[in-house]
Amino acid sequence: MKNIINIAVVGLGQVGIYLLNELNTKKKDIEVKTGKRINIVAISAKNINKKRRFKINKKIFFKNPLEIFKNKKVDILFEVIGLSDGISKKIVEKALKNKINVITPNKALISKHGDYLSKLAEKNNVNLEFEASVAGGIPILRTIKEGLATNKIKKVYGILNGTTNYILSEMENSNENFDNVFKKAQKLGYAEPGNSKFDLNGFDAFAKVRILSALAFNNQISKHKCIMEGIENIDLKDIKIANQLNLRIKLLGISEMINDKLFEAVHPCLVSKNSYIGNVNGVMNAVIMHGKPIGENVLQGEGAGPGPTSSSLLSDLLSILRGNIKKPFGIASLKRKKVKPFNNNNYTNSLYLRFEVKDKPGVLSLITNRLAKYKISVNRIIQTPNKKNNKATIVIITHKTYENNAKNCLSIFKKNKNILKFPTLIRLYN
Amino acid sequence: MKNIINIAVVGLGQVGIYLLNELNTKKKDIEVKTGKRINIVAISAKNINKKRRFKINKKIFFKNPLEIFKNKKVDILFEVIGLSDGISKKIVEKALKNKINVITPNKALISKHGDYLSKLAEKNNVNLEFEASVAGGIPILRTIKEGLATNKIKKVYGILNGTTNYILSEMENSNENFDNVFKKAQKLGYAEPGNSKFDLNGFDAFAKVRILSALAFNNQISKHKCIMEGIENIDLKDIKIANQLNLRIKLLGISEMINDKLFEAVHPCLVSKNSYIGNVNGVMNAVIMHGKPIGENVLQGEGAGPGPTSSSLLSDLLSILRGNIKKPFGIASLKRKKVKPFNNNNYTNSLYLRFEVKDKPGVLSLITNRLAKYKISVNRIIQTPNKKNNKATIVIITHKTYENNAKNCLSIFKKNKNILKFPTLIRLYN
Repeated sequence: MKNIINIAVVGLGQVGIYLLNELNTKKKDIEVKTGKRINIVAISAKNINKKRRFKINKKIFFKNPLEIFKNKKVDILFEVIGLSDGISKKIVEKALKNKINVITPNKALISKHGDYLSKLAEKNNVNLEFEASVAGGIPILRTIKEGLATNKIKKVYGILNGTTNYILSEMENSNENFDNVFKKAQKLGYAEPGNSKFDLNGFDAFAKVRILSALAFNNQISKHKCIMEGIENIDLKDIKIANQLNLRIKLLGISEMINDKLFEAVHPCLVSKNSYIGNVNGVMNAVIMHGKPIGENVLQGEGAGPGPTSSSLLSDLLSILRGNIKKPFGIASLKRKKVKPFNNNNYTNSLYLRFEVKDKPGVLSLITNRLAKYKISVNRIIQTPNKKNNKATIVIITHKTYENNAKNCLSIFKKNKNILKFPTLIRLYN
Repeated sequence: MKNIINIAVVGLGQVGIYLLNELNTKKKDIEVKTGKRINIVAISAKNINKKRRFKINKKIFFKNPLEIFKNKKVDILFEVIGLSDGISKKIVEKALKNKINVITPNKALISKHGDYLSKLAEKNNVNLEFEASVAGGIPILRTIKEGLATNKIKKVYGILNGTTNYILSEMENSNENFDNVFKKAQKLGYAEPGNSKFDLNGFDAFAKVRILSALAFNNQISKHKCIMEGIENIDLKDIKIANQLNLRIKLLGISEMINDKLFEAVHPCLVSKNSYIGNVNGVMNAVIMHGKPIGENVLQGEGAGPGPTSSSLLSDLLSILRGNIKKPFGIASLKRKKVKPFNNNNYTNSLYLRFEVKDKPGVLSLITNRLAKYKISVNRIIQTPNKKNNKATIVIITHKTYENNAKNCLSIFKKNKNILKFPTLIRLYN
């Protein structure tokens, strides 16, 4: 590698602009650590005139990023646009084909096209690095690929989305409902105005789970249909009841090998307030791994925001500047196996079920009979009447039961006139 | 690098023997991940006939490790003896001079001779890797050198010794005194029979602090005299009183840059039971870092034992097999600066002071007057009389005070006939 390295940054949103500033202010430090001098030769964004936190150098601005490689000699490209397809995919593809190293925090792109793009990188003998795509500043991918390289990992799970973790924590702290707390999150920059659907519905965490699975188990990125639930249906009421039960609701991403089948899921979980994961609050992310011989390994840090993301982007940069070519997924694409999916019907959990009912005789027995029919045994019932309007809240904690049973069992409650809304189901974390 | 890599393992204690087994069983996996085939060509230990958990191949055994290089072509040496000097230093020196890569978990060696040995490695263009020297299986050094490479780290602290953390946790859980719990730790293999002095007195944690400082702040390993206290004087009584105060005692290692001066310390701390660090129990280790732009970053995992240690040793091996030469401390030795020590007299903490006194008038005022004279202001006093023998326990929690004041203030209590033993001092964690 030459001693002067030309860099292009495509995408100048919050992260891109923060990254540019970091690259500029840390040039010296990077040179001390790697012996390479970096030189930003091109930047690109949709709008040159948008108001930005740091100034940009308009002389090196390209309206169309695809024009960059025609005009400039680039060694490393930062793709910081964030689409799963479209221009994000095009520019990364083009860079790799032109033997240009690529660094990106784009989980949507990598979880969808990571297999194809990593093959492309390997074929062209360049790096494709994406540390920032999972858990922001936490160097979790590098830890799996390098720090725990020879461990046999069985399970990876954790809190992978800072936005939803902030909302759940803040609902508990402030006693305010979802809508109010969501607005607060937007104000604080934890949830982006037009763009938070994928945080709330679990998709963002799910993309990260796919990437983690591929790295932890050395398999191709799975395309199977999996359990993906967000936090949109979590009510302040559930948070309060959980609190009374010494539990806390967390949106967990889970990836596990069960009898050589891959189980992946994202859904809200009730966890003990005394557990480690139950105390990872606010915008923090945490990833827990079980491996052999390492045992349990935990990493925790800020999961989002331009600072932590830039920290990971720069760690990728240093890895490229210091070393030689690395396989994007730790091992050669050809050696990464296809795995079979675990049958989600066999997923078992204790369940928290909340029913809002008319307070009249027979309703509770209707529910418990129905549960019994599906072999769902009850561990605990808490019925709270609301005398004023003749309604009641019934919370049932079940013993462990199959996903499939629960789904079928609950389906009937849709049509019952004494059950006022479809029951809320939250799984207890095993 | 060639495709077949010759390996020597020197030291066949618990770790060495576990490592050998891992190397043998993971040969294939290592080849898949790196394209290199490893070949164990030499092993060495003091005693060939010692009873070991796994069988060794006696055909490649060397009584004197210094003979290995004359007879075998070695590419990578594992030094797993563990001395700070003597044969450990000699064999590592000899390997590096012979352009042989070295991997070691030896914190005593690295914290004492790391600067010299890293220069030697750089001069001979080989690797010297020591991930396993700090926090067992937690890939903390790699995280600092690579994952957080461009962060400006301000502080690193945590629980760095599994033996002492186990003892403190178990004293609380079992309500048993230090001696009994220590025996239990030995039985469980958490404390080695002849070798636990350095765990108990803080030296082991301190060696790790020195290594962490050097990496986090890019300085030479400091040689300054620092606060180093172990857990030998922690009484079950203190653990019980802490418990009542919603506090827990942890042996913390701390490294921090304060006004461009380096502060390093190891001492027991009282931490909140609700804090993260207060809930890292048993043999677990945890390292917390504050950096910019990363914010707070936490790593937790098993800190000791042959399994976690081997995990780190193999991560070093893969790093060497995959990549090119890396600087042992992340940057070139020449660029690592000498730092000035922080004046420990200016270290401030709230203090927990426990006095065992004769229960008679004037004793409490004697103590409080003395404290006042040294400008140590009292936040809380708990006096518990023991009517039976006319004694009392006085616990005082002070406001923040200078280390120096505390030392001078306490010195006088040695000579007082009403103070039955020298007071116990435990710092509260800031």
